[in-house]
Amino acid sequence: MQTVFPELTDDVIGRMKGASPRMHEVMSLLIRHAHAFVREAALTQEEWRAGIDFLTRTGQMCSDSRQEFILLSDILGVSMLVDAVAHQSADKGITDSTVLGPFYAGPQRELDQGESILLREEDGEPLIMRGRVADPGGNPVVGAKVEVWQTATNQLYDVQDENQPHGHLRATFRTDEQGHYEFRTILPVSYPIPDDGPAGQLLRALGRHPFRPAHVHFMISAPSHETLVTHLFLKGDKYLDSDAVFGVKPSLVVQPERRHGVSTITYDFGLARKR
Amino acid sequence: MQTVFPELTDDVIGRMKGASPRMHEVMSLLIRHAHAFVREAALTQEEWRAGIDFLTRTGQMCSDSRQEFILLSDILGVSMLVDAVAHQSADKGITDSTVLGPFYAGPQRELDQGESILLREEDGEPLIMRGRVADPGGNPVVGAKVEVWQTATNQLYDVQDENQPHGHLRATFRTDEQGHYEFRTILPVSYPIPDDGPAGQLLRALGRHPFRPAHVHFMISAPSHETLVTHLFLKGDKYLDSDAVFGVKPSLVVQPERRHGVSTITYDFGLARKR
Repeated sequence: MQTVFPELTDDVIGRMKGASPRMHEVMSLLIRHAHAFVREAALTQEEWRAGIDFLTRTGQMCSDSRQEFILLSDILGVSMLVDAVAHQSADKGITDSTVLGPFYAGPQRELDQGESILLREEDGEPLIMRGRVADPGGNPVVGAKVEVWQTATNQLYDVQDENQPHGHLRATFRTDEQGHYEFRTILPVSYPIPDDGPAGQLLRALGRHPFRPAHVHFMISAPSHETLVTHLFLKGDKYLDSDAVFGVKPSLVVQPERRHGVSTITYDFGLARKR
Repeated sequence: MQTVFPELTDDVIGRMKGASPRMHEVMSLLIRHAHAFVREAALTQEEWRAGIDFLTRTGQMCSDSRQEFILLSDILGVSMLVDAVAHQSADKGITDSTVLGPFYAGPQRELDQGESILLREEDGEPLIMRGRVADPGGNPVVGAKVEVWQTATNQLYDVQDENQPHGHLRATFRTDEQGHYEFRTILPVSYPIPDDGPAGQLLRALGRHPFRPAHVHFMISAPSHETLVTHLFLKGDKYLDSDAVFGVKPSLVVQPERRHGVSTITYDFGLARKR
């Protein structure tokens, strides 16, 4: 196959003499791959135009409560790959990370150990989540910030649903002197990512479903440790092998223990020390 | 270099079983190149986030009169490459094409042979543009639609400038029985592409200027011929070697003939026959 217009790529890259070294590196790779994609796909002008329209609609779908480009990055596996690149040298004793997702909503109300993150009744089955936050040597991380969030049983996060009280099913806890955390919630449910926009159209065009297996989000941070962004998934969920955003890792799948109508998940997190 | 998370790319591509053959081909290439870019650049989470923000702002800059994603495609050489892929087997006698650009505004008023495309006085130097539209065998293309557009001397197209009459410096002509076209206008001027949005920020971060060398746009179409999208540039323009959108081809650079204060450009266009 003869390369079409090979000098164009060098011309574009050659014009970035004012870029910082890192900007030059990233943009050179971006341009090489973008041009290689156009050549190898022999992209037609109609397909290019469809791509422009798709990106435009994706940008215009974004609002304070909706980030359609993150959804797009998620469903193409880009977000998980960026996460993997950032955590490729993880040591033993450090919990696997996964995507942040678009529904983290910034600072959350702080609750005391053992309190419930519900702001209204839910039909879901009661769940206690507890465990310990430690460093790879097993030393407790005291006063770590444990931020958690999940959907209601109607498959929506509070920020997607004006009928939920603001802050419902999300809260921040602090680990105690032994590094323990504990809170009450309900069993999470599987749910579709918002599929009424361009990302949903793309999923349908690829023959994919929009569901994520049931999970609770965690972001755990402490001053001298690397922040951990992860989820815990429920064993047995039918979408574990086909998560729409490729976020599942075997080490993050847990089996609740059920006693007297209450489920309990005990999970210990390991945080890396800051380098 | 060890490949980070290699199975992810196969997993994403393996999930597209419901895609049409062409969709599968294009998306597989897109995912392979997007993932290779992230791995080779070792893109950080902060850079990914900056990219999401950049794309979001680009989408939100788009309006009925502004297409920021086309500008972005233009300044990265993607638009010219798509054009080159579409016209790689151009025969002798067919005029080189170049980018459409974001300022084509759809159907334009039709004028008679020799009329002026100005709707108000301009300071610019009078210019007559004339020539012939023919097929590669030299046969006239009769009744071809010749659509032309250019900026005013203030460096703005009518669609960018509410002070210009709607349709100023753009019009449609038809070739006569000999394939001739002719119209009056003013000498075009070099101008900056709109650089008050994300595309402009990127140009500055790369140390590039936003200027395009002076040109008049042409779109020439006829039922049994391939549509030609091109520009004519003025010889001697200082931006010919650094067009912000990489649109210049040597065959499209012309030298006006100046006589009694009026410049004339005579240029013959060759259209391919439809396959």
